[in-house]
Amino acid sequence: MRRFRFEDPGFQAAFAAFVDERRETPEEVDAIVRDVIAAVRGEGLEALLRFAREFDKVELNEQSIRVSPEEIEAGAAACPADVHEAIAFAAERIRRYHERQRPADQRFTDDAGVELGWRWGPLDAVGIYVPGGRAAYPSTVLMNAVPAAAAGVGRIAMVTPPGKLQPAVLAAAKAAGVTEIWRVGGAQAVAALAYGAGPIRPVDKIVGPGNAFVTAAKRRVYGAVGIDALAGPSEIVVVADGANNPDWIAADLLSQAEHDPAAQSILITDDEAFAAKVEAAVEAQIATLSTGETAETSWRNHGAVVIAPLEQSPPLVDLIAPEHVEFAVAAPEELAERVRHAGAMFLGRHAPEAIGDYVAGSNHVLPTSRAARFSSGLSLYDFLKRTSFVKCDPASFAALAPATVALAEAEGLPAHARSAAIRMGQG
Amino acid sequence: MRRFRFEDPGFQAAFAAFVDERRETPEEVDAIVRDVIAAVRGEGLEALLRFAREFDKVELNEQSIRVSPEEIEAGAAACPADVHEAIAFAAERIRRYHERQRPADQRFTDDAGVELGWRWGPLDAVGIYVPGGRAAYPSTVLMNAVPAAAAGVGRIAMVTPPGKLQPAVLAAAKAAGVTEIWRVGGAQAVAALAYGAGPIRPVDKIVGPGNAFVTAAKRRVYGAVGIDALAGPSEIVVVADGANNPDWIAADLLSQAEHDPAAQSILITDDEAFAAKVEAAVEAQIATLSTGETAETSWRNHGAVVIAPLEQSPPLVDLIAPEHVEFAVAAPEELAERVRHAGAMFLGRHAPEAIGDYVAGSNHVLPTSRAARFSSGLSLYDFLKRTSFVKCDPASFAALAPATVALAEAEGLPAHARSAAIRMGQG
Repeated sequence: MRRFRFEDPGFQAAFAAFVDERRETPEEVDAIVRDVIAAVRGEGLEALLRFAREFDKVELNEQSIRVSPEEIEAGAAACPADVHEAIAFAAERIRRYHERQRPADQRFTDDAGVELGWRWGPLDAVGIYVPGGRAAYPSTVLMNAVPAAAAGVGRIAMVTPPGKLQPAVLAAAKAAGVTEIWRVGGAQAVAALAYGAGPIRPVDKIVGPGNAFVTAAKRRVYGAVGIDALAGPSEIVVVADGANNPDWIAADLLSQAEHDPAAQSILITDDEAFAAKVEAAVEAQIATLSTGETAETSWRNHGAVVIAPLEQSPPLVDLIAPEHVEFAVAAPEELAERVRHAGAMFLGRHAPEAIGDYVAGSNHVLPTSRAARFSSGLSLYDFLKRTSFVKCDPASFAALAPATVALAEAEGLPAHARSAAIRMGQG
Repeated sequence: MRRFRFEDPGFQAAFAAFVDERRETPEEVDAIVRDVIAAVRGEGLEALLRFAREFDKVELNEQSIRVSPEEIEAGAAACPADVHEAIAFAAERIRRYHERQRPADQRFTDDAGVELGWRWGPLDAVGIYVPGGRAAYPSTVLMNAVPAAAAGVGRIAMVTPPGKLQPAVLAAAKAAGVTEIWRVGGAQAVAALAYGAGPIRPVDKIVGPGNAFVTAAKRRVYGAVGIDALAGPSEIVVVADGANNPDWIAADLLSQAEHDPAAQSILITDDEAFAAKVEAAVEAQIATLSTGETAETSWRNHGAVVIAPLEQSPPLVDLIAPEHVEFAVAAPEELAERVRHAGAMFLGRHAPEAIGDYVAGSNHVLPTSRAARFSSGLSLYDFLKRTSFVKCDPASFAALAPATVALAEAEGLPAHARSAAIRMGQG
């Protein structure tokens, strides 16, 4: 954990350098991923079965690679009642939030008489990658599949590495409207979704988090299909005054730190004594967490405490462009409205980031590693696309033709010019 | 040029195979691009000057790598008056169209008393790649820079390979609100925009078309910055009945074909005699075009004529998911409304695609190579990003806390659970 004081000389440069530190060791996986994708494209199902045997130590066939409806029902039924209810509660809130994002079609006639506009429509088919083992989270399924279903995507294909399927994950898939589940993980799953393999038909876009192999594969298939943002280790900034309970703020910092040794938690406060109490609470809580080792590594290597006047926090937040920022202060909007770069903001002393991970309704798939400078969280927009249209009659066309001809000729494109001129009797 | 008849046995499979044909020879440029990016990251300006010397045979320095305001003024002043006027006309129409895309912020209180919403804001800085030489098009500058400026992007940095700058390109840059122009092209330009180099400060997103090196570089820097879609060779489908003038339709088909030997033009008509007339007109017009060689190659290798009932055209268009489709029929909406996958639609006999390239107002940066299945044309959205927010008071938090705890515990994330439970007095 690093300490910074806004008033210290050299603060800006030192803090900027800290923010710029890389938090992930880039793995050299690209050559492997290239070969895996080529194998799936060339051999289809056979390659998937071979990789399952080699990597996952599981023997599958054309039938068993798909999770059957009976397995989904049985798994979901094994989910404890309180978790089942929480999943239904979360799914409904996520659905209602994302429904509000539906953009309107437009059609208008401009002053030249040209009819213009665009209309939105859903993607046909989406693939959702869900990591396996302990990182198989029901919330991942909900946050990726519910917006796709709300957008009207007809086919939602989930892929997850072979292995025991968590009941909560199956319950979430059922609640979210997933239409098929396949036992395939890694780069081979991405390739199967992008190009099709055996019984897995290709999709139009692939979303969902994964390891370095999955991320490298998504980068490679981009273009053949759409992909979501490339997820990095997550981060949180907590802006808190001294009136907070230090235990609450410590828990918030640790709720990021426990995700990943490369996660980053930063406290910005104007109260040095309060900061010391939060630091002590972090240490005390780490000792009690089953995820304590991960949280401790993250906090030690990437954590920070910044002592600064709180009115300076918005530009500091912009420098970090964090995935999440909490404003645990009396008047959070005054600070929040000055922030330009953040994925999601949590306002007030009773808005811990974890509510956004599960049930607030907003999406927890958010830009990491400063990507909030240029991108947004997952939304209904990710599952819709826009088709523009232009309609002319002879009169409105006549208003556009001369400039079209002038520009086409300036660009040295005579067929472009002719397609306009010929309709003016000048072809 | 291939001919297909909807009524022929095997039509669906044969046409699907035609649509799936690759139209580009993938170039193995990735290793070169990796090294170029590493050089720019490691050496900054020195690498840019060396590449200019080696690749572009131009000697530049820290000053001359930037196009001065005086050069921009002088170049723009050298642009012919009719082109200047056409640029101003186009810029204003593009600006007005894209202004209509501005999404509204949202803030609402749900039935649990939770305040939720999101707000949109512009990116800080955008880089626009403009190819050099004869492919330096003023319309490229307008279509990429005008929406960025309309979105409120403060810094719009254009890069273009060293060489003579076309007056029309400089006039377009001035009209579109480009704030700086740099003489650097290729993968090194993409690297300079992504990571900064000498006087070129990094941007947040890179847009604009380029060759295989530029595209490979954009794929590599994605994540550090945003990028637009990866452009492939363009395509047009013209759906036309026999009442059209065959010369007009031939000109429209050629307006795509002249772009690129890999471009694709497809005519769908229900009138075989009309198709023959269009084919003859295509041959006759090719002979008169300065771009005839390119157009001829494109039409020979990738062109097609499909004889089909026009009511079958929407599913055929969806199979192609083309960048552009024209409906040159009496009632174009009846067909257009059944299309699901297309970048842009042109409705009526007086709406040649070329008006969309320049002055209709809609964007000409559109999904190619079937990417209309999952993506949209460039828009104001590409230069905006969304920050979500959640605000709770103790009562509304209490409505969310139990489900948060249940899901966090099910996912094995105890610090997440604690951050909610502790605020309920259960930590």
